Amino acid sequence: MRPSGRALDQLREVRITRNYTKHAEGSVLVEFGDTKVICTASAETKVPPFLRGQGQGWVTAEYGMLPRSTGSRMIREAAKGKQQGRTVEISRLIGRSLRAAVDLEALGENTITIDCDVIQADGGTRTASITGACVALADAINWLKENGKVKGEPLKQMIAAVSVGIYNGEAVLDLDYAEDSTAETDLNVIMTEKGGYVEIQGTAEGEAFSAEELNAMLAHAQKAIGELSELQKAALSS
Amino acid sequence: MRPSGRALDQLREVRITRNYTKHAEGSVLVEFGDTKVICTASAETKVPPFLRGQGQGWVTAEYGMLPRSTGSRMIREAAKGKQQGRTVEISRLIGRSLRAAVDLEALGENTITIDCDVIQADGGTRTASITGACVALADAINWLKENGKVKGEPLKQMIAAVSVGIYNGEAVLDLDYAEDSTAETDLNVIMTEKGGYVEIQGTAEGEAFSAEELNAMLAHAQKAIGELSELQKAALSS
Amino acid sequence: MRPSGRALDQLREVRITRNYTKHAEGSVLVEFGDTKVICTASAETKVPPFLRGQGQGWVTAEYGMLPRSTGSRMIREAAKGKQQGRTVEISRLIGRSLRAAVDLEALGENTITIDCDVIQADGGTRTASITGACVALADAINWLKENGKVKGEPLKQMIAAVSVGIYNGEAVLDLDYAEDSTAETDLNVIMTEKGGYVEIQGTAEGEAFSAEELNAMLAHAQKAIGELSELQKAALSS
Amino acid sequence: MRPSGRALDQLREVRITRNYTKHAEGSVLVEFGDTKVICTASAETKVPPFLRGQGQGWVTAEYGMLPRSTGSRMIREAAKGKQQGRTVEISRLIGRSLRAAVDLEALGENTITIDCDVIQADGGTRTASITGACVALADAINWLKENGKVKGEPLKQMIAAVSVGIYNGEAVLDLDYAEDSTAETDLNVIMTEKGGYVEIQGTAEGEAFSAEELNAMLAHAQKAIGELSELQKAALSS
Amino acid sequence: MRPSGRALDQLREVRITRNYTKHAEGSVLVEFGDTKVICTASAETKVPPFLRGQGQGWVTAEYGMLPRSTGSRMIREAAKGKQQGRTVEISRLIGRSLRAAVDLEALGENTITIDCDVIQADGGTRTASITGACVALADAINWLKENGKVKGEPLKQMIAAVSVGIYNGEAVLDLDYAEDSTAETDLNVIMTEKGGYVEIQGTAEGEAFSAEELNAMLAHAQKAIGELSELQKAALSS
Amino acid sequence: MRPSGRALDQLREVRITRNYTKHAEGSVLVEFGDTKVICTASAETKVPPFLRGQGQGWVTAEYGMLPRSTGSRMIREAAKGKQQGRTVEISRLIGRSLRAAVDLEALGENTITIDCDVIQADGGTRTASITGACVALADAINWLKENGKVKGEPLKQMIAAVSVGIYNGEAVLDLDYAEDSTAETDLNVIMTEKGGYVEIQGTAEGEAFSAEELNAMLAHAQKAIGELSELQKAALSS
Repeated sequence: MRPSGRALDQLREVRITRNYTKHAEGSVLVEFGDTKVICTASAETKVPPFLRGQGQGWVTAEYGMLPRSTGSRMIREAAKGKQQGRTVEISRLIGRSLRAAVDLEALGENTITIDCDVIQADGGTRTASITGACVALADAINWLKENGKVKGEPLKQMIAAVSVGIYNGEAVLDLDYAEDSTAETDLNVIMTEKGGYVEIQGTAEGEAFSAEELNAMLAHAQKAIGELSELQKAALSS
Repeated sequence: MRPSGRALDQLREVRITRNYTKHAEGSVLVEFGDTKVICTASAETKVPPFLRGQGQGWVTAEYGMLPRSTGSRMIREAAKGKQQGRTVEISRLIGRSLRAAVDLEALGENTITIDCDVIQADGGTRTASITGACVALADAINWLKENGKVKGEPLKQMIAAVSVGIYNGEAVLDLDYAEDSTAETDLNVIMTEKGGYVEIQGTAEGEAFSAEELNAMLAHAQKAIGELSELQKAALSS
Repeated sequence: MRPSGRALDQLREVRITRNYTKHAEGSVLVEFGDTKVICTASAETKVPPFLRGQGQGWVTAEYGMLPRSTGSRMIREAAKGKQQGRTVEISRLIGRSLRAAVDLEALGENTITIDCDVIQADGGTRTASITGACVALADAINWLKENGKVKGEPLKQMIAAVSVGIYNGEAVLDLDYAEDSTAETDLNVIMTEKGGYVEIQGTAEGEAFSAEELNAMLAHAQKAIGELSELQKAALSS
Repeated sequence: MRPSGRALDQLREVRITRNYTKHAEGSVLVEFGDTKVICTASAETKVPPFLRGQGQGWVTAEYGMLPRSTGSRMIREAAKGKQQGRTVEISRLIGRSLRAAVDLEALGENTITIDCDVIQADGGTRTASITGACVALADAINWLKENGKVKGEPLKQMIAAVSVGIYNGEAVLDLDYAEDSTAETDLNVIMTEKGGYVEIQGTAEGEAFSAEELNAMLAHAQKAIGELSELQKAALSS
Repeated sequence: MRPSGRALDQLREVRITRNYTKHAEGSVLVEFGDTKVICTASAETKVPPFLRGQGQGWVTAEYGMLPRSTGSRMIREAAKGKQQGRTVEISRLIGRSLRAAVDLEALGENTITIDCDVIQADGGTRTASITGACVALADAINWLKENGKVKGEPLKQMIAAVSVGIYNGEAVLDLDYAEDSTAETDLNVIMTEKGGYVEIQGTAEGEAFSAEELNAMLAHAQKAIGELSELQKAALSS
Repeated sequence: MRPSGRALDQLREVRITRNYTKHAEGSVLVEFGDTKVICTASAETKVPPFLRGQGQGWVTAEYGMLPRSTGSRMIREAAKGKQQGRTVEISRLIGRSLRAAVDLEALGENTITIDCDVIQADGGTRTASITGACVALADAINWLKENGKVKGEPLKQMIAAVSVGIYNGEAVLDLDYAEDSTAETDLNVIMTEKGGYVEIQGTAEGEAFSAEELNAMLAHAQKAIGELSELQKAALSS
């Protein structure tokens, strides 16, 4: 029995709200239950120095948590002058994953910077961030197209992400904090809308996990990515 | 004529939403028109080292802006490893102002940390932050009282803040970004609900301002603080 | 009765010594009683990147205190690798105030950097810094003119600054450390030699202050700025 | 055909040299072909502050590369004052993986710090590091036991790691730099000597990878971990 | 012929002014010609953590230059957030040298922190700093004795320092900037008043120097240290 | 009697192994007894910004110690975000010394960066570094010549370094850690192969040292530099 009463392969209620703030070219509030992340996509018509003159664009991401998005207040990274290792890791993961959604050559010499800021955390912030950010990314790409900055179609495919894990010996989908903090294994799965793997990251927190457990978790993830892709499409067509 | 069509002494629509996020002891979304700030107040039953054993509490504040809360994306201070001078200044101003609301001895050896994070900026973020944060502070003090951490009444008085300025030669109240970016003078006024000055900070951006202009701005501010105090009370009693 | 025995509206003895060190284009030792600050103005015939090609100049300032300029030794900010918030704030205040003295277009593509280093502190270091720095600035502008780097007259007006406050319930002028450390309210006033306000910053350290108290403090400041302007002129013509 | 001429499931020549330097309680030079890493394990009879008084120990790791361990010189992180995100990620991965080898309660209030410093890089430095570091860890644990600092047996199981990937459409084992830099997918697998998964991290560099490809890569990894475990045992018994 | 017209073994005019600022336990302005350094010695009745409970004291030093103490403005290290390597080196040299003047056990659990801040530079700032700082140190030790914090006599001997060099093929004493910037060899010599070497640091800027040149430079230094010791004694007895 | 049983003027066994790692243009393992340092020389066909367009090259150096190269683990400087003062000092010393070996104009607009990383420390790491680095430097210069990047001969002369000291009242050569940690005086001598002084740095750790002691130490150093030069030549011709 899961603390939330959900079925083993049941997502939390997922909501994707576009145009959440007014300045960014793409701005999404994504909610996986009580996990809430503001994802903005900022388009700029230039590229970082290492890409100049190569006729391709760039997608990068930064992740952060408001200090009191969590149960006890975390130190503000800007005030400390240093990001935590976890923050750096997640920023890199989001950027790498979203680049799999984009044809960087078709993007031309434009950069899209994704900011994912967690305003309330209840487990699964990195996978919620990727799922929401991909919608903001699509909006920013549309902005570039509508404003004549891009000719072709840089969006190759949508990307979504979800966490799965082993909780009380069972493979479960979309862990909330109550599960995540005691799960034996935690696996983040990022996939394309067509069902290809973009990234998998699994960690045994306690005992090592078996090939069977891995397969059970991946099956949950695959099913959920299909549902999340539908929600992304619904949001983009609304 | 103001860009927004408001009267010279007219506030933008101000909204104060309590319990905006679920973890903090006080959590408020404050909106002054399109300026939106999440203010959380985190209570801890200990004090920083420099106050240990002195039988008094502490109130401090940190301010930040999401990178794309503004028209063009700002660098993420956590990633850069350094806060801007402006950020440090505003954090100090908010903390200093809110300490004027609190009897630190009555607070006992507890600390309340205020976080003001701007999710959308349209001028006046520091004064909106103070106005919203004081409501979150009151909620956190109530939490301490309800949980038996505090005996007496640490909240001496509510504090509110508003910006005034000289725009096109006229004293105007509550400048939005369109006004703020071209105003000749910008004055931030923080007052108690009883009408005492807690802090005033005025800067001539272009020409120096006169004693008459100062008085006209202060008159607008005094009237507005009365209105903001009513909004704070209404929010706290809802 | 003030600890120093001064009248309520009496300045400390103020001395302005030009050409205090030999390398800078402007170099002033300013003393307000026991507060002593070395103010240098360094002229460079270029502008920072954000102003390049815009046909205007720049004035900026940095403030620091020698570690043992105060009663107990402060940590050396260079060794710690971080400036205190107070240092950043004062640096920004000095730079902003001095820019009000200068016609940046008439300055042409030249930069003047002001360094204010407190060698002995006894209250009012930021206002002494501004008052002394404006003399160093005038010398640096003269150097630019004499060396043919500037054609017109970039110095629009002299600027001076003084602190006022409420001490023992009375408005007093030019607080020394004994007063400053216990004053109820502290107000820094920066004005042009013609009597316009450039910046006012007032903080209630204890109780809020009233409009009457504000007016009493501003009256002291206005009178003192006149006296300081005379001292600046005398120094520049000597 | 692989650039090195190896079979698809063939490891490079792996060498594990114990007691490589003289000061550390465990010191290993691990070589996977031309990839060479010095792994030291330093034992201390105390724990970090967050674990004090809890009757358990700690294992942590730090990773670095000599600036010219690579084809072109990398900036020295100590001189820059900041570790790259990649460095932080790998340090965290090594520490997390090795903690799976240890019973932290049996370790008692002792800390083992692993340092993995790459002196020559040719692909797979993180997996080589983990494989070598586990041998150094075992030596440090033995040192603690021999010196009476530990009573029971903190070493639960040996851990080894290897990279697999999709190169030219084929699943291959233990990628060297020539393969790694052009591989479509890169997957790092950390397993116990008994064949359980401790961590998997897979990234599609180009196209998404399929479930079949994932399974093919995992099969290579499983076989290789068995071989690496044998080499670890041989080294420890020599 | 030296640019200043001095004889090869002639010091610049050296002045040592005690009680230069009012807060520090020892405060000296030292001048070697146009090189001017404020040296303060701050006494504290505690020791750094690494010495606690060992019944001995500590002497340490920090060095800095005001940004415009030099011909062209240097970046402010506090603003940059990093001290230059040269600054760190000189701070360490001053501290190490002055510790040779003190019996740390007789000092008891007290710390003296020396700050040497160059307000005008014209060559030889590090040796001027040491020479002046030793006088400030003596004053701070006297303060500790007079205030009953120290029983015995911690001052073992006075220390002085001077630079020598090879300029135009000749050994010269006490190089000013005009010489220092083109000298072939620069040697800093720190000696006790009794003529023992505390530290020597010599660098060939161009050609290597010979044993004969070294001896000629050391002879100049030895003579000068005698003169500087007399000046220190005269200052302390005035 | 020395702890190692060596004669007063006897070097430890010195070994210089070229081509120690495969990527760098020059790569040397230098061993002075148990002190082992990897010295790499990286050649780049460009110069730092401050030298651009001046028709000359640059040689610079960085020094580091692996955290467990010493008896107790040192903090990793990259993780701390700050190099120790000692590290900065030694880096600067190595770079300055090696520049004495090179005709920077003959080097053309090329840069050689030396990295000296101590993998095992037993005293004298800085002098071993310089001695080994000069061989790596020679290899990198040869690489530049062989690849047509340099026309003339930038290598003016070989440089070697050794430490001497006063141990138990006697001048001794090439101190190991057992001696170095208790020596009264420590003197590092860097010389050209022709016997000119490039740099001397001597510090009295306890009592001041005399001119006689200085001369005795320098005599040991001079003899040893001859031996080290022979070893360098032998290595380069092998």
